[in-house]
Amino acid sequence: MKRIAIDMDEVIADANLRFSEWYERDFATRILPSELHGKYFREAVTPEHREHIVQYLHTDGFFKDMAVIEGSQEVIQALAKKYEIFITTAAMEFPTSFVHKYEWLKIHFPFIPWTHIVFCGDKSIIQADYLIDDHVKHFARFSGQGILFTSPHNVHEKWTPRVNNWQEVASLLL
Amino acid sequence: MKRIAIDMDEVIADANLRFSEWYERDFATRILPSELHGKYFREAVTPEHREHIVQYLHTDGFFKDMAVIEGSQEVIQALAKKYEIFITTAAMEFPTSFVHKYEWLKIHFPFIPWTHIVFCGDKSIIQADYLIDDHVKHFARFSGQGILFTSPHNVHEKWTPRVNNWQEVASLLL
Repeated sequence: MKRIAIDMDEVIADANLRFSEWYERDFATRILPSELHGKYFREAVTPEHREHIVQYLHTDGFFKDMAVIEGSQEVIQALAKKYEIFITTAAMEFPTSFVHKYEWLKIHFPFIPWTHIVFCGDKSIIQADYLIDDHVKHFARFSGQGILFTSPHNVHEKWTPRVNNWQEVASLLL
Repeated sequence: MKRIAIDMDEVIADANLRFSEWYERDFATRILPSELHGKYFREAVTPEHREHIVQYLHTDGFFKDMAVIEGSQEVIQALAKKYEIFITTAAMEFPTSFVHKYEWLKIHFPFIPWTHIVFCGDKSIIQADYLIDDHVKHFARFSGQGILFTSPHNVHEKWTPRVNNWQEVASLLL
């Protein structure tokens, strides 16, 4: 059975929406999706707010209750019948995220056992046939096939295959 | 550069000593090292205490301030000059351990960056040349070479290579 490793933020969990919610809460300004094109959220705000935004990632609760990326639950459940699925997230950079990410997965992806959840940093440690991720940097030393999941920050990256949503993942792998 | 993945409990962190301390605290009885031969700690206590012991693993603080296994710091620091080192621990079973394990590594192994720490469950997800672990079960689907680190519970397991302490790891890999 082939194995698929799947990232969390911006692939199954909507981190940009959380940035947007907290930014609007703190500065009464909404960042429109069109303003995010080609950028990380921190690059779309005025420079004097940038450090404030980066601190969100280290704030307890940021990774709690994030919205689920559309289609991810249904498609991953279908993939799990044909592939071995691991969730592989670079959580090590953000220790405040550990318990929230773990609880989020239990709630939204209850069919993925704890044995198949990985918190890591450098994803070259992952042994899998495919890695679905929004960061091409993780594909450089990955031994399998990287599949780039489109997120505003990576739209200008050149990588094949690229998938724009979970329906395209289903078309590629099912 | 070849890569070594290294387990935590009973390899670099003395979990049996912690079991022993807490057991003596709760039952005023000391389990002698000789009583642990061929057993997990929970198997060395009277059967009516077994469930109490298992709960330690799910108790906040169990994984905090564990003693460092003798020689591990010096030998891993030497190995890090010749190999890429990852710490790979099956922390996913015990969510209360996440932050304590992370902090423990920062204190006792500050030369290992967060990018090279992995919390997982099924270790077949680990891509490495060697895995130093006290559980042979993790070697079954591991693609590299498993190296069994002796712990009381595994003394009757047949596995080659086996190392009895960190000096033997140094002899094998340096």
